[in-house]
Amino acid sequence: MTNDSALSGQARGPADHDVRFQIMVSAKEHFSRYGYEKTTVSELARSIGFSKAYIYKFFDSKQAIGEAICKDCLQEIESEARAAIATVSSPSEKLRRLFQSLPTVTLRLFSDDRKLYEIAIYAASGRWPATITYENHVKELLKQILIEGRSAGDFERKTPIDDVALSAFLVLRPYLNPLLLQHSFDDFEVAPTQLANLVLRSLAL
Amino acid sequence: MTNDSALSGQARGPADHDVRFQIMVSAKEHFSRYGYEKTTVSELARSIGFSKAYIYKFFDSKQAIGEAICKDCLQEIESEARAAIATVSSPSEKLRRLFQSLPTVTLRLFSDDRKLYEIAIYAASGRWPATITYENHVKELLKQILIEGRSAGDFERKTPIDDVALSAFLVLRPYLNPLLLQHSFDDFEVAPTQLANLVLRSLAL
Repeated sequence: MTNDSALSGQARGPADHDVRFQIMVSAKEHFSRYGYEKTTVSELARSIGFSKAYIYKFFDSKQAIGEAICKDCLQEIESEARAAIATVSSPSEKLRRLFQSLPTVTLRLFSDDRKLYEIAIYAASGRWPATITYENHVKELLKQILIEGRSAGDFERKTPIDDVALSAFLVLRPYLNPLLLQHSFDDFEVAPTQLANLVLRSLAL
Repeated sequence: MTNDSALSGQARGPADHDVRFQIMVSAKEHFSRYGYEKTTVSELARSIGFSKAYIYKFFDSKQAIGEAICKDCLQEIESEARAAIATVSSPSEKLRRLFQSLPTVTLRLFSDDRKLYEIAIYAASGRWPATITYENHVKELLKQILIEGRSAGDFERKTPIDDVALSAFLVLRPYLNPLLLQHSFDDFEVAPTQLANLVLRSLAL
């Protein structure tokens, strides 16, 4: 600890937000080059040109920085998936597109950046809040599509909706969660389509 | 190589079968204590009290011994699952029991023996023939139940049966494959039931 450790704690405000973002961007670059696990906050501070205490003013720990990067990345995946389903109106087609886009975007983001994959693996293993929030958003998105399909009279209504949403989420999970995705490449070409079709058959009237 | 390396190659015959089995049992014990990765064939030979060349008479490599152990273990899982479905006649109930028993037996065998889990992880990562054979048997078993259910008039017949069998297998895969299973513990209580129900809903007439 340096003598300005009294500054530690969460900072707030628009200017602070910019600094936070600047630290995140620089940290992501640094992690991309040297890896998340091996990097210390001291090394990160040196590479950004800030004092370690100054970084601690914005982030409580290295994990907090990793979390922010991970959250950003998961939000991007979610936005792309939402954009993919926004252009169609049929609930069946929305479900099909969700099953196609989520795995594809996840794979693309992580293949583009192996070191980002490393952070995502940490996030998924440690059940970081960003991961849990993301999974809940996917479950919610699934449930919304199910509700729409039921109202439109396209999907069966006998099964409790939470059971349907949960089982559909469990089917999709191996292609979302980076820990599972890394072992699901072999099936990647056919699995999302086959599984969307299975779920749609299960929803038939 | 010792000077009796000329003996190398696959041995056959009933007595040879016993020696092979004895090597497998001893190797499994040795791997359980010291781990699969760290053990060399020389160490294995020393611990069993055979020459390295004598072991090479029965197994081409350490992986071949690991494969034999793995095959044995996967056959045990398959037998238990077959026994679990043999006592019921309804195809729906067979499917339910398959979805329940395969994950449960897999988890039990591997939790009982962490080192066996290590061999299974190698087998699954390296796509060892034993793993591929096992997966094909599970797919075949699923297909048999589907055929029975279609003949009995319990399951829909519109969807190509290979698509139905493949998608059901993909749904089950995270709970069979040790690489995925190790990241699926959180859902383990509810997932097999929820997923069997989903597949059964997809098969409804």
